[in-house]
Amino acid sequence: VTTTGLAGLPTPCLLLDRDRMQSNIDRMTQRAHALDVRLRPHVKTCKSIEIARLMTAPDRAAITVSTLREAEYFAAAGFTDILYAVSIAPQSVARVLALNAGGANVQVLLDAPETAREVAAGAAALGQTLHAWIEIDVDGHRAGLAPDDPLLIDVARVLHAAPEVRLAGVLTHAGGAYDCRSAIALERHAEQERRRCVRASRNLAAAGIPCPEVSVGSTPTALSASSLDGVTELRAGVYVFFDLVQAGLGVCGIEDIALSVLTTVISHNRAQRRLIVDAGALALSKDRGTAEQSRDCGYGLLMGPDGGQPIPGLRVAAVNQEHGIIELPPQSDFADFPIGSHLRVLPNHACMTAAAYDDYHVIDGRGDVLARWSRCNGW
Amino acid sequence: VTTTGLAGLPTPCLLLDRDRMQSNIDRMTQRAHALDVRLRPHVKTCKSIEIARLMTAPDRAAITVSTLREAEYFAAAGFTDILYAVSIAPQSVARVLALNAGGANVQVLLDAPETAREVAAGAAALGQTLHAWIEIDVDGHRAGLAPDDPLLIDVARVLHAAPEVRLAGVLTHAGGAYDCRSAIALERHAEQERRRCVRASRNLAAAGIPCPEVSVGSTPTALSASSLDGVTELRAGVYVFFDLVQAGLGVCGIEDIALSVLTTVISHNRAQRRLIVDAGALALSKDRGTAEQSRDCGYGLLMGPDGGQPIPGLRVAAVNQEHGIIELPPQSDFADFPIGSHLRVLPNHACMTAAAYDDYHVIDGRGDVLARWSRCNGW
Repeated sequence: VTTTGLAGLPTPCLLLDRDRMQSNIDRMTQRAHALDVRLRPHVKTCKSIEIARLMTAPDRAAITVSTLREAEYFAAAGFTDILYAVSIAPQSVARVLALNAGGANVQVLLDAPETAREVAAGAAALGQTLHAWIEIDVDGHRAGLAPDDPLLIDVARVLHAAPEVRLAGVLTHAGGAYDCRSAIALERHAEQERRRCVRASRNLAAAGIPCPEVSVGSTPTALSASSLDGVTELRAGVYVFFDLVQAGLGVCGIEDIALSVLTTVISHNRAQRRLIVDAGALALSKDRGTAEQSRDCGYGLLMGPDGGQPIPGLRVAAVNQEHGIIELPPQSDFADFPIGSHLRVLPNHACMTAAAYDDYHVIDGRGDVLARWSRCNGW
Repeated sequence: VTTTGLAGLPTPCLLLDRDRMQSNIDRMTQRAHALDVRLRPHVKTCKSIEIARLMTAPDRAAITVSTLREAEYFAAAGFTDILYAVSIAPQSVARVLALNAGGANVQVLLDAPETAREVAAGAAALGQTLHAWIEIDVDGHRAGLAPDDPLLIDVARVLHAAPEVRLAGVLTHAGGAYDCRSAIALERHAEQERRRCVRASRNLAAAGIPCPEVSVGSTPTALSASSLDGVTELRAGVYVFFDLVQAGLGVCGIEDIALSVLTTVISHNRAQRRLIVDAGALALSKDRGTAEQSRDCGYGLLMGPDGGQPIPGLRVAAVNQEHGIIELPPQSDFADFPIGSHLRVLPNHACMTAAAYDDYHVIDGRGDVLARWSRCNGW
């Protein structure tokens, strides 16, 4: 790719600041090292081979995925240790086994006896070893079994008794961390995540069922935990880019956000003092993850085309399918934002925003485009 | 494509009920005929050649698009009369002219003198005729010029004076209709849209600038207008599928909605009486367009795999990236929704939900899959 500036890019498009991203990757890698756990990056945010390689350098080790299409995409690129961290649908077991027959080691997650039986039956039918994890609920956020739920032992027994299944361990995601409103609250939530997932593992051991691995994670808890005693593995994904929700949680600065959407000013609504840009609901997503935080960023904050700090008083206040609406603050003038000029939108939620695009325009600190890296969307 | 049921489809995926869609298409076609205006369907909802052909049958006539990628995609399929109904970015004029050099007649929209000058200069440089529309603001919803704004005459004069530009007409989108809460309010909003856009056209005529076309539209106003006197063209898009927002506005019934997301139950959270399904924020979008309506549908209502009426008391209450969370109502039991069973989610906003998918699984009334039709996403 020829090095070039942003002027010639069609908008909206996705910009990825390589240096910020690398610094974010280094931070989490060092953190996992300091906490003495294996890092298994979640690649659901980036969905990109090039980025996943950087996240797992130097050895392209373990990754976490959120769809089977990701599993297939990353397996085709040579990743083998792949944990599919969404409860497996019984009818999808065959798709996993087909991938593993090709040399991958895609591992599944579940939290119900009936799913455990389907997994056992599928693996047995092919005579193929399949690694399964049990999902633990540490904060009532979503799915999984509470550490002391008797069903946990029932599920584990089904897996343990199945000759072709290996119970890899217990796994949790402390999604409730997104409701924390202080660093202390995050640290406590991380400790709750650790303690409850470790307890689940010990309950299994006490029932005579070996549970080698304890996997926890979310970007906010990973960056807030004071100890991960008893944990073997840390999963996190959005740290690779960070976003306004993470900045609102206080686990990164706005200047750490590596992802932005390049957009063009397409209209001046002088009657209502609005800029209209060509990044709307599809280009930014309708994620309003900052709505309940202390700083409501609308559908995104704005930077100039060269990046740097957000422009004071500017945010995407409303979106339609292909229009973003920005209220012009009193201290600004339309002449500051001519029609045809570029802005960059910092996303509320990087995972949602990135999913609208086929690829990334990778830029250096000067805004030169170094490469285009593709993504794997869909299911 | 072999006729087959839904059981073998990977989830989440997009289902399109062919018969419901055809009935929606027929309804709008008849409506435009009764109102004595040309229908220029907006294909930003479907983004599909096969569907656009049905919407414009029998003659593959005029269409509206929301991105230049759509313009390129539909032009390649033989559509010629294409109105790009988002203010053109000055740097995109060349992309339009390149398309038109290949035989299409892509028309542009603008509302600023500086854009008009760029359009004029671009067309002149290539010696190529370009049709331009001026956007009118009829309800303060987004962009465009008020009918009596003196800038309207200024913009029109620039276009009128440019030898290679034809001023096609004035165009508006009454997006404010989405805030209406009764049939009467919608009818009044449609009349306001008509009246103000026609006034803009007459203001131009009074200034000696011919303005042949008057284009209005939105699905709710198109279906609520009592008269379109003075209007020549009607644009609408989401009617092809309809969705819960449209049902909430009262312009369709829930039984008219042709689009749904097939999803699989992947977990039972018995402690919290929740079903977890594999359609989450990416599969459904985070559009909450029904939040302010009289019936808040969460992130979507649920039907059984065979369609029909929504299941009472069930809605997708929360979403994470790949998880949908459904609270189980008191009258329901987990046994009604076994792990591995299918549900269908009716979307709040069809345009947003469909954009996550590469294609449609087209089904008949019995749920047999008749075809797969592709979509054109991105920019």
